[in-house]
Amino acid sequence: MRAARYHGQRDIRIEDVPEPELRPGTVAIDVAWCGICGSDLHEYLEGPIFIPPQGSPHPISGEEIPIVMGHEFSGTVTALGEGVDDLEVGQGVVVEPYIIRDDVEVGPGHEYQLSPDMNFIGLGGGGGGLSEKIVVQRRWVHPVGDLPLDQAALVEPLSVGHHAFVRSGAKTGDVAVVGGAGPIGLLTSAVLKAYGLTVYISELSAARKQMARDTGVADGVLDPREVDVAEKVRELTGGRGADVGFECSSVPVVLDMLMDAVRPGGVIVNVSIWGHKPEVDMPTLVLKEIDLRGTIGYANDHAATIALVQEGKIDLEPFITARIPLDDLVPEGFDQLIENNEEHVKILVDPNAR
Amino acid sequence: MRAARYHGQRDIRIEDVPEPELRPGTVAIDVAWCGICGSDLHEYLEGPIFIPPQGSPHPISGEEIPIVMGHEFSGTVTALGEGVDDLEVGQGVVVEPYIIRDDVEVGPGHEYQLSPDMNFIGLGGGGGGLSEKIVVQRRWVHPVGDLPLDQAALVEPLSVGHHAFVRSGAKTGDVAVVGGAGPIGLLTSAVLKAYGLTVYISELSAARKQMARDTGVADGVLDPREVDVAEKVRELTGGRGADVGFECSSVPVVLDMLMDAVRPGGVIVNVSIWGHKPEVDMPTLVLKEIDLRGTIGYANDHAATIALVQEGKIDLEPFITARIPLDDLVPEGFDQLIENNEEHVKILVDPNAR
Repeated sequence: MRAARYHGQRDIRIEDVPEPELRPGTVAIDVAWCGICGSDLHEYLEGPIFIPPQGSPHPISGEEIPIVMGHEFSGTVTALGEGVDDLEVGQGVVVEPYIIRDDVEVGPGHEYQLSPDMNFIGLGGGGGGLSEKIVVQRRWVHPVGDLPLDQAALVEPLSVGHHAFVRSGAKTGDVAVVGGAGPIGLLTSAVLKAYGLTVYISELSAARKQMARDTGVADGVLDPREVDVAEKVRELTGGRGADVGFECSSVPVVLDMLMDAVRPGGVIVNVSIWGHKPEVDMPTLVLKEIDLRGTIGYANDHAATIALVQEGKIDLEPFITARIPLDDLVPEGFDQLIENNEEHVKILVDPNAR
Repeated sequence: MRAARYHGQRDIRIEDVPEPELRPGTVAIDVAWCGICGSDLHEYLEGPIFIPPQGSPHPISGEEIPIVMGHEFSGTVTALGEGVDDLEVGQGVVVEPYIIRDDVEVGPGHEYQLSPDMNFIGLGGGGGGLSEKIVVQRRWVHPVGDLPLDQAALVEPLSVGHHAFVRSGAKTGDVAVVGGAGPIGLLTSAVLKAYGLTVYISELSAARKQMARDTGVADGVLDPREVDVAEKVRELTGGRGADVGFECSSVPVVLDMLMDAVRPGGVIVNVSIWGHKPEVDMPTLVLKEIDLRGTIGYANDHAATIALVQEGKIDLEPFITARIPLDDLVPEGFDQLIENNEEHVKILVDPNAR
């Protein structure tokens, strides 16, 4: 079968690889759609980061470069391994793409995303969504019912936003400020709106501001070149400030703005990935007793995230900005994200299209 | 009466000032002992910080330089203003030294420490403990029963540690790492021990390491020049890491160490005051889903803090390293803290000694 494999920086190849084998306790899936994630782009430009380099196989998957890529994907069940009796061939599903030790428990109450050597399918091994087929452990498979499979491919990044919401402790009626309207900022905002928060997004880029408006995920889009965002948020909240902030940009000045914009006793969740140690406004964190909370991936978020989409509380269609075949992955996928990053939210790849 | 007043950097004068007037709803106190706080020292060396400069009176107190200093004090009630009927003349008391708007509610459930324009008695106006007498609103007065008044003067900084403990969400049996064995690090550790935590303190200074050992507030004192503190804490916790960290040093490398030493999903409370924006290890905060929590002052902590001392769970006597009369405040107080800072935990001043 065909798959996109990572060989190194700016070296992703569409190759023929052996089909994965169905084992007891696993599920075989024909991939329908796979999104390209910001972390895929980081691997392409600056990697390997999560991807295990040659000579350093991942301790759980045992795999190293070349690695099949893609961790935001949906598909159709084609076969069930021995002992799997709660799914059916033909079901539409998404995969929670974790590589986690077999003895780590998953399910409510378990923070398996923080377990040792955690990595992601499609980055750390285990095949990936940028291939025709994949076989994964039953525990990572989530049925999506009638959800169109192109939209379902966005459940993974939406779950990141859901996890950030859960980590924030925010509730219906709260006011949130989201720093950055890239894919994660927009999808996090969509979750916040679905849970009944008031959402203000801070964003510079004209294209992203437009996307934030068009997708309806914001009650207000604020441009820090036009207004003092924190001051405006206070004005919009009767002087109080936002209850929660979500850092979705990896830009120090945005984190500063959120420290200013949240109320005393407020919470800031960091949803972005930092490649360096930024200066952080600790004096304000102290004087306002702010909670700055890290968040990575998701844990027990997929079911609730899928339900939000199924119930119509989130429409994922507007976030899909291109659909391409696997052969065009580099020129129409990665290169597009490099050249026209701000025009895109999610580029979906069909690994079976010719 | 005599009082120590702040006139500017390195300019604190012992002067004659008018006695404060008893008003309805207030309590008159003869000061017994007043501690010198690290923030007093910062005001002396680098201020005014909390102290309102000339021409910028504090919006609540209406006062500006010169300001009577001292916010860590105990004393004896000498008179009760109209309407105060739940205290008695002759009672030993401490003062929760807040300057807070009259319309801000205090008491359980109210985060009055975060209210607008909050400042401290002895920094922002309202008299101070470095004077013979003071008159304060009833709501800030906490009886201390039979507690010796020299020890009672340490209730204020101990309440800072108590508030940090509450903010951490830690519980009996948890493992804590405290970064820094200065006065706040030691007193925070004392609270943690009193609540049944296991406490490891990280400290470089020989004198402070000794103090941490002598006061019995630590289960282990670790010197980062001798061991990798985070690695050692993991070793001591079966590979798990600490549940909570307390930053009590304002040193970036200590905050880095705490990020490393706490377990995934752990909490770090910042108890120190930062004069700048340090680089913070956001990559680790994200990957380990750490909560970094600011804390300032105290709120509803004094009663529980006093009880810990009354019940014998904390012995404050070993933390008193000198007792001086008001006249010696600068040479034997501030100058001592500048020259021999690491030898001292708390220098107590007797404003009535001649």
